[in-house]
Amino acid sequence: MARVYLDANATTPLDPRVREEMLPWLGCGNASSPHLEGRVARDAIDRARDSVAALIGAAAKEVVFTSGATEANAIALLGAVRAAGARRAYCTAVEHPSVLRTLLAVPGLDVVECPVDAAGVALLPEALTESVGVVSVMLANNETGSVQPVSDFARLARDAGAVMHTDAVQACGKIEVDVAKLGVDLLACSAHKMHGPKGAGALWVRSGVELAPLYSGGEHERGLRPGTENVAAIVGFGAAARFALAGLGARRTRWENLSVVFLEALRAGLPDTAVHLAPVRIANTFSLTFPDVEGEAVLLGLDLEGFAVATGSACSSGAAEPSHVLRAMGLGRDGAERSVRVSMHADTSASDVTRCVAALVRVVKGLRALSG
Amino acid sequence: MARVYLDANATTPLDPRVREEMLPWLGCGNASSPHLEGRVARDAIDRARDSVAALIGAAAKEVVFTSGATEANAIALLGAVRAAGARRAYCTAVEHPSVLRTLLAVPGLDVVECPVDAAGVALLPEALTESVGVVSVMLANNETGSVQPVSDFARLARDAGAVMHTDAVQACGKIEVDVAKLGVDLLACSAHKMHGPKGAGALWVRSGVELAPLYSGGEHERGLRPGTENVAAIVGFGAAARFALAGLGARRTRWENLSVVFLEALRAGLPDTAVHLAPVRIANTFSLTFPDVEGEAVLLGLDLEGFAVATGSACSSGAAEPSHVLRAMGLGRDGAERSVRVSMHADTSASDVTRCVAALVRVVKGLRALSG
Repeated sequence: MARVYLDANATTPLDPRVREEMLPWLGCGNASSPHLEGRVARDAIDRARDSVAALIGAAAKEVVFTSGATEANAIALLGAVRAAGARRAYCTAVEHPSVLRTLLAVPGLDVVECPVDAAGVALLPEALTESVGVVSVMLANNETGSVQPVSDFARLARDAGAVMHTDAVQACGKIEVDVAKLGVDLLACSAHKMHGPKGAGALWVRSGVELAPLYSGGEHERGLRPGTENVAAIVGFGAAARFALAGLGARRTRWENLSVVFLEALRAGLPDTAVHLAPVRIANTFSLTFPDVEGEAVLLGLDLEGFAVATGSACSSGAAEPSHVLRAMGLGRDGAERSVRVSMHADTSASDVTRCVAALVRVVKGLRALSG
Repeated sequence: MARVYLDANATTPLDPRVREEMLPWLGCGNASSPHLEGRVARDAIDRARDSVAALIGAAAKEVVFTSGATEANAIALLGAVRAAGARRAYCTAVEHPSVLRTLLAVPGLDVVECPVDAAGVALLPEALTESVGVVSVMLANNETGSVQPVSDFARLARDAGAVMHTDAVQACGKIEVDVAKLGVDLLACSAHKMHGPKGAGALWVRSGVELAPLYSGGEHERGLRPGTENVAAIVGFGAAARFALAGLGARRTRWENLSVVFLEALRAGLPDTAVHLAPVRIANTFSLTFPDVEGEAVLLGLDLEGFAVATGSACSSGAAEPSHVLRAMGLGRDGAERSVRVSMHADTSASDVTRCVAALVRVVKGLRALSG
């Protein structure tokens, strides 16, 4: 029996069409070289830039390619904090570690974490004080799929004169994302979360927003991301963005239909499982908490049965600390440790979902029998 | 007639064997995931780490994978400056922009640039003052191929209590590199300069050397380089390092033989060309200065004839400023602008070299006829 991969929020399978587009570029010229080999590489990057810009409703010249979203978040946040000399930053308590830890590590920066409700949605304050220089609110949460009120935060940030960043890694390629409608100044996204390759991310920088680069070198990516471009990965990102944009409606419908299948089967098989469903959410993600079994044990049991899922965020899976996202939603340490994330990708089928729930029921009941 | 690529110091063609090893990993799991898909990706990264470590005589656990050498240099230099609170750094005037500009951009850091002789070799000072916290000397220069006395600088750095970094991008895979013999604390290298893919570099960090990370996120690469690993590129780096180590002697002999062919043909056809040959050099690189024609015009003329070469460093090719390396060697602005770099790769043939020189003679004579 083929394995079933349901950990799309950690990374997605590479779309075979994206792979085909990447292959000719694996050994190409240096895009900074003025000779033919360099110029064709430069052209390929420019075409990819158009595709990524189209996915988020932006102008191509405002898109900066990076090696991934963690780096894009760092360029955005440290770049804005340093350029503005910001002394205070505002974010939510459920940001990805690449946002939260990066802000918390800045010497002398006062970081205010906005609390969230039980569904994981950030509680909008009435206003932001003018001492806030940078605001960062993720568009969709990686652990729960909750969609945050980013445009509302962007309005508050504008009123306070702060730079507004959104980590849109889990939203781009899954729901419509439009930088103008969001009203943000900066937006980060990643290829490998939308069936593109690892090794390519992007930061959108609204014209006129000042960022101090993390480090220097050549004048690549307007000086904001020096270093020889990974042309093949960037070409793959462009292709993935194009396919994601074309398939956005179909993906959404598929996930909404499969959500019904998943949740009905789960409620029938394991009725005491808590499912963290935000009112507005990405329908590919299920965050589950069991009353009495460890998430880690469930993950390993499912792995043995041929199913790949996650506990907490992908980046901290295997780490000792239970999810800061679930803790911020009010779960105790025990609850956070008894949680599992199932996340579907663009090709997840009804059979994948029903087989996964059946395995989940077997594994959880098996663990209960062992312990009880 | 097939094009002849002689710009290997900008980027090398991907070795077909490296490509084959990469392909299975283009769409793999996230190496931080504890399930099977994640574990096999982690194992692939660990095997690559062994291969890169072997190339530089290091322990695998001391190798940190990055997205490229520009980033590796930044992690080394900014990491060491910040961890040590260094107020003064020492480097050569011919460092790559990713070293020189990164150091010069640190607020409050006094950067002392060591002069070089006419062949581009750094002039070793008698001692370094104890106020120097960080020293950075490249192992081989990207524009001239000159090999620098890194182990001598490392001794001075040790005496002064400074952290010693070497940018070994143009040396690794071309000559023997051994971190113990060099006596350095930090070493940066890159896959795509040794017939590996773009998108993977490495920083070797001697055990016990403290570095402050550029930014935070997951605990990837011991926290020094957070972000989902580009598994395919890292696997390709490992393969390229393995093939480079096995082929080191053969590459060297090939380049030494082809150097004789190149220089004899050049002296016969264009006897007034200055060739910048350091006493100890990487034999793949020729830095040429013509008395009367612009390097840019020669590059474009060769490009039209089917040959890819460079002016100045790859990263600043196309930029307005003439090479800071040639200027530091005593060439005037005119001389630096009348220069071209030809750099051979592991598969460059005698026919490539003789055809290139013949084209060079035609192009230079043609330009002279036009202007005179």
